[in-house]
Amino acid sequence: MGRVTERRRVIRIRDGAVSSRPDTLVAEEPLEIRLNGKPLAITMRTPGDDFALAAGFLVSEGVLGSADELANIVYCAGATRGGEAEPGGGGNSYNVVDVRLADGVVVPDLTLERNVYTTSSCGLCGKASLDAVRTTARWRLDDAPDPTVRLTPETLAALPDRLRAAQQVFDRTGGLHAAALFTADGELLDVREDVGRHNAVDKIVGRALQDGRLPLSSGVLMVSGRASFELAQKAVMAGIPVLAAVSAPSSLAVDLAAETGLTLVGFLRGRSMNVYAGAHRLALDAAAAAG
Amino acid sequence: MGRVTERRRVIRIRDGAVSSRPDTLVAEEPLEIRLNGKPLAITMRTPGDDFALAAGFLVSEGVLGSADELANIVYCAGATRGGEAEPGGGGNSYNVVDVRLADGVVVPDLTLERNVYTTSSCGLCGKASLDAVRTTARWRLDDAPDPTVRLTPETLAALPDRLRAAQQVFDRTGGLHAAALFTADGELLDVREDVGRHNAVDKIVGRALQDGRLPLSSGVLMVSGRASFELAQKAVMAGIPVLAAVSAPSSLAVDLAAETGLTLVGFLRGRSMNVYAGAHRLALDAAAAAG
Repeated sequence: MGRVTERRRVIRIRDGAVSSRPDTLVAEEPLEIRLNGKPLAITMRTPGDDFALAAGFLVSEGVLGSADELANIVYCAGATRGGEAEPGGGGNSYNVVDVRLADGVVVPDLTLERNVYTTSSCGLCGKASLDAVRTTARWRLDDAPDPTVRLTPETLAALPDRLRAAQQVFDRTGGLHAAALFTADGELLDVREDVGRHNAVDKIVGRALQDGRLPLSSGVLMVSGRASFELAQKAVMAGIPVLAAVSAPSSLAVDLAAETGLTLVGFLRGRSMNVYAGAHRLALDAAAAAG
Repeated sequence: MGRVTERRRVIRIRDGAVSSRPDTLVAEEPLEIRLNGKPLAITMRTPGDDFALAAGFLVSEGVLGSADELANIVYCAGATRGGEAEPGGGGNSYNVVDVRLADGVVVPDLTLERNVYTTSSCGLCGKASLDAVRTTARWRLDDAPDPTVRLTPETLAALPDRLRAAQQVFDRTGGLHAAALFTADGELLDVREDVGRHNAVDKIVGRALQDGRLPLSSGVLMVSGRASFELAQKAVMAGIPVLAAVSAPSSLAVDLAAETGLTLVGFLRGRSMNVYAGAHRLALDAAAAAG
């Protein structure tokens, strides 16, 4: 299961020269995530690591925090509707996964509004989104002046090349986002690729949950592209103290990082980077950083 | 209303030199879209053009197809909960919009499954996603061998520079996606920027709906970055016959384009591009294209 790429015929135009040839594309398919048999969400994802994706999604949503809260995850063999299989089929049921919680684990009421303003008194606003993350997070990030995880700029500077070297599919399709988990020393622990950056992060977090490694309190999460609120949220919910991105963060991602103690680094390109929050984890010249 | 950027203090590291200064970030805030008073969706977006965003979102969902189906769109003044305004507030209510349909327009049942497999007999799979778009689309794209819209590669080659020139915020923040609508002659009609590429497209489509310009049957939609299934879907639902992207499309975006007659161009960079579907709208050397 899990075709990561697919082949399609493409017409190439290069400086007026036209040719036709097969091309490799990143695969994208819907995945329905069910919780105890009840449909919860559909995400468009690159097939593969689907159980980890579902588990990580539920960590981000505050449903799961440890492996023992999980009974099992299965593909829904009966998910085909109307009894009609596609020609050569059977593959459809690999697009529906059901996450069963362990006995006694309460299934929360996950509604549209949950993550946004049920915990807030201020209506729908950025602050409400921050409050929702803070109140549902299972772990607090270490915000001591002398935190456990400390990084040098040199360690961070090495991460983009290591992420890129570990990406397997990007070079063939150009169409994948990547997320990678590193130690504070810059050692690569895991890397995932997906059409959706949020899916790539969920796959990393879900695998860590399955392996009993949450919270990832000594990890550094690196993502290709931008750092949105959603990605910062996923880092916080998994207890990851450092999020580094190749491109820009949004205002709300920075606000969430500042409020939760997440170290947020953007525009990480070679020896250049911007630190938007959580600079206490970086070994910097203190006088310069304060100036 | 609608702060497109916000300022935050950032620590810059450049080749070991550390400094601190204000930086401009793209603003990201939640927007709740209500339909006839009922919460329908929440999207994280860059404030501004919120009515257009809501209208365009509902075009993509198959709810709206013309301006006369729309009674009005309003910000929910009463959306603040608990009666507590934020200090200097009032802004919160600008994050909830209510779209009221005209009398007699049926409010469809928009459920989780709607777009994915209610119209299909094959369970949850890529094909079901294609079927859902085809059956909900209001307009068919012109798939005649001699279509109304015809483009030259030279016209397409000029679009990325025009898109970039029209982007106002990108250069300041590096954090925005952009979408632009062009004529088949390459004339810029509209451009929108947002933290979410899908939001930028919804803003363009929604504005067109408000102005009575749907279907956009002679338009060319250009997006920064990748072309996912979702973006191809939005083009088809708005009747736009050509979608061009700076980066790679996904497999399902190509499949949807092939099935609906959408012209899908990827890796559009200078005079190089790949045509993944709908080559009948491109003025190419026919022998070369068939080879």
